[in-house]
Amino acid sequence: MKQYETFELTFSGRILSEDYADIPLTAVFSCGSQTKTVQGFYDGDGLYKVRFLPEEPGAYTWLVTGAVSAEGTEICQPADIEHHGLVKAVDTHFEFEDGKLFTPFGTTVYALAHQDDALVEQTLETLKAAPFNKVRMCVFPKDYDYNHNEPPYYAFEKTADGSWDVRRPCIAFWHRFETILERITEMGIQADLILFHPYDRWGFSALSREDNLLFLDYLLRRLSAKPGIWWSLANEYDLCAAKSLSDWEEIESFVAHNDPYGHLLSCHNCFCFWDAARPGITHASIQTKGLSELPRWIAKYQKPVIIDECCYEGNLPHFWGSISAREMVYRFWRCAASGAYCTHGETFLADDEVLWWAKGGILRGESPERIAFLRKIIESIPGPLTANSGGVFQLIQMGEQEIETTLSQHPEYPGEFIRLLHASICRMEADDRTVHLAGEHEWAAHAGDDAWLWFNDRQCFGEQTLQLPEGRHYRVELIDVWEMTSTVLNENACGTTKIRLPGKEGLAVLAVSQRGQVR
Amino acid sequence: MKQYETFELTFSGRILSEDYADIPLTAVFSCGSQTKTVQGFYDGDGLYKVRFLPEEPGAYTWLVTGAVSAEGTEICQPADIEHHGLVKAVDTHFEFEDGKLFTPFGTTVYALAHQDDALVEQTLETLKAAPFNKVRMCVFPKDYDYNHNEPPYYAFEKTADGSWDVRRPCIAFWHRFETILERITEMGIQADLILFHPYDRWGFSALSREDNLLFLDYLLRRLSAKPGIWWSLANEYDLCAAKSLSDWEEIESFVAHNDPYGHLLSCHNCFCFWDAARPGITHASIQTKGLSELPRWIAKYQKPVIIDECCYEGNLPHFWGSISAREMVYRFWRCAASGAYCTHGETFLADDEVLWWAKGGILRGESPERIAFLRKIIESIPGPLTANSGGVFQLIQMGEQEIETTLSQHPEYPGEFIRLLHASICRMEADDRTVHLAGEHEWAAHAGDDAWLWFNDRQCFGEQTLQLPEGRHYRVELIDVWEMTSTVLNENACGTTKIRLPGKEGLAVLAVSQRGQVR
Repeated sequence: MKQYETFELTFSGRILSEDYADIPLTAVFSCGSQTKTVQGFYDGDGLYKVRFLPEEPGAYTWLVTGAVSAEGTEICQPADIEHHGLVKAVDTHFEFEDGKLFTPFGTTVYALAHQDDALVEQTLETLKAAPFNKVRMCVFPKDYDYNHNEPPYYAFEKTADGSWDVRRPCIAFWHRFETILERITEMGIQADLILFHPYDRWGFSALSREDNLLFLDYLLRRLSAKPGIWWSLANEYDLCAAKSLSDWEEIESFVAHNDPYGHLLSCHNCFCFWDAARPGITHASIQTKGLSELPRWIAKYQKPVIIDECCYEGNLPHFWGSISAREMVYRFWRCAASGAYCTHGETFLADDEVLWWAKGGILRGESPERIAFLRKIIESIPGPLTANSGGVFQLIQMGEQEIETTLSQHPEYPGEFIRLLHASICRMEADDRTVHLAGEHEWAAHAGDDAWLWFNDRQCFGEQTLQLPEGRHYRVELIDVWEMTSTVLNENACGTTKIRLPGKEGLAVLAVSQRGQVR
Repeated sequence: MKQYETFELTFSGRILSEDYADIPLTAVFSCGSQTKTVQGFYDGDGLYKVRFLPEEPGAYTWLVTGAVSAEGTEICQPADIEHHGLVKAVDTHFEFEDGKLFTPFGTTVYALAHQDDALVEQTLETLKAAPFNKVRMCVFPKDYDYNHNEPPYYAFEKTADGSWDVRRPCIAFWHRFETILERITEMGIQADLILFHPYDRWGFSALSREDNLLFLDYLLRRLSAKPGIWWSLANEYDLCAAKSLSDWEEIESFVAHNDPYGHLLSCHNCFCFWDAARPGITHASIQTKGLSELPRWIAKYQKPVIIDECCYEGNLPHFWGSISAREMVYRFWRCAASGAYCTHGETFLADDEVLWWAKGGILRGESPERIAFLRKIIESIPGPLTANSGGVFQLIQMGEQEIETTLSQHPEYPGEFIRLLHASICRMEADDRTVHLAGEHEWAAHAGDDAWLWFNDRQCFGEQTLQLPEGRHYRVELIDVWEMTSTVLNENACGTTKIRLPGKEGLAVLAVSQRGQVR
């Protein structure tokens, strides 16, 4: 038994051919005063398994009851250097259980696991060389444009009448699926597992309420003890015709309560965002192009926000599948400079209809190498980024008295101008204000006083004035996010710092504290 | 006297040195049963002038009373071919009085008239070769970054205590100003005259209420009879500290009621839009970057909408003065493909601080030639463009019953999907919805069934399906808005038409009815 690695017990028993999804099989693991109860599962051929994820090293005893009775002891060794435990949400960022920062740079391959072995192999090879550390992928197969093939296996066997027998999980499906998940997580990639989605011709999106929970129960028995897996309740929950909001809330609650380890849990929208403030939800997983609102959403949810669908780099005749590589790269930088996270996807139409976004295969686009460049920069920053406060967003939230207080504290502020601005903004109709202010958004974030990041997006500033803290010295770098170059402009910047810029778009400015650097 | 040309009567009289702004000098022009009363003005050196703009040909009699008494008759000849009268708002577009369509392609030179003669000359030379047919310019000089010079003249003489004597307009100022206006309008460029603005160190933005109206009265006496002039009450009315909303309403009402001809009248915002639905206002003049809302604003105001400030092409360290040429060009296309209009400006910082946006001089940017290309295309379309209806914007405004009716009329629509979409969009919080839907906006407009225009913006479609009317044949052109190329894709398109596109950004598709072409 090793900390942060799945511990598995296998027992032989009676061969089951019916109703083997939610067998009685409970294990209690105890270490000192801590105990954790987990459910085992039937794995076919008369094999009964219990999986456990030890989160602390130490001496464990375990007791299995139900379909199998057994007990034992194990010494759990401290984690190997390459194992860090589950990723957890901490404030508005992510960390592994051992405290190592995790910054998501995701991609999307919805039907990764539902392709033939050769294509899965190619996808895994591609992922190995790609900059992504998270992949959004579905448990159920996908039916949609360019996605009409049958998967090798389905999650369930069928009944005599041809309907899905959720009480008989397809063991071959799960073996293959877990192998794929393991190969992904072994590469250091988090599998953001989509539990339900609407693009379906087989009936998986329209199971009964009871069958949904039975499916989830079996999935949680099998997968909960595996690190590197996140639960995404849905892709586009709001387009799933067969599930009401209360169905989703029940699903959310079921997953949250039946996962013994608290894997990350989110729910992805098409239009109306899932309320990420709900207690079962660990972070927001949002589909939108409205990235200017990120600081507001982060403040509202007080949880990490991932733009899990910002459109895909490609050439489809659809709005969502036809952004340029440059735009994809900019969206990643906008998110990074908002203290949020972005997810990639790619939809170049090929003759064989193998598009990365759903089937995998190879990457054809120009954004991944630039996302790799961004990732290297972000991972060099000593701490998670938080959107800068201030600006118009803060102003419009102020009451008259608060403004007066602020102005009295800052005699250097142009008080009359601020009062005029505030009054005018407050008078705007809400929808005009939202879209108007979105167009004025500044992408800027900081990691405490250790690092400050500005993404200038499509602005072509010829110069820029940085407001850096006094009393620390910063190395200021000019970053061309498309050309992937970084030029040091100033080695000892401090306080108000004016820099010259080349008047082109796609530039970022990073100031890293020289002290912060060696932290 | 010629139709659409200023007719001027000059009389000699007593030389006035005090209080000569609002002298009693009234003229009544009659033609058949029509009469129009106009006010004359004192033009210095004992000269009294009355200006009149005949809008119909015919036999006129005139009677002048007040400081001067005189009468006479004139035959007004029908308009020369190059004169079309005032530009008027008609529905949501603009036409000259003779019915000729006017499509604004504006630029901005705020302090054009407040530069020395050599620079004014250079600006006019530049305008002659530029694609612009409207220029936003101020009556009062500008004080702001890069604008610290004194103008040759001010609109008023001063009192003994150094304050402005609004009762003594500076005749030399007006002579020079009118000469500049005439040279601009003779080039076929409309002067969008900004009557007040906040960027001031002389006190013009903080005149008393009475002085504001006295100034406007004199201005209207002098300029109303000149075609080619529009009234813009303000640049950024909401940043003018010395004027309340009711001051602005009074100014609006004063201008509307004291202009005998009904020149175009608008009011430009920084944040809160001026309510263009107000009866005195002829069109919306908006500063914003939120162009996705254009169809909504046009529908709301039922008047033409000009984005009179969409940022400036340049390299200033300000958000508003640092967009790329490409972005400027795209904003023009976005407006055009929304049935709206856009205004250019340029802010490249030069050593002499002569920036086009305020002082004029030369154009350094790459957008003007591309705006010329757009203008040529738009002016080839037989009629004004109107944003396409339909899409998500229309959907969210529907009630349940209206959706059911729509679906029952269109059995081919995916009813379940539309109901889900509608329910989800309606559940969104207003500000989330606004910004979310803005990101999904399609730029598409049409001129009746004669022409259909799609601007694909930054989308990189590899193919596109056009829904053209049945029963007419269209020539479909692919336009590269940056490269300024146009390629015919199909000479006889009809109904649903699929076209192949090269999967790059900055493309527009124009379908012009072969019948419409010869109209």
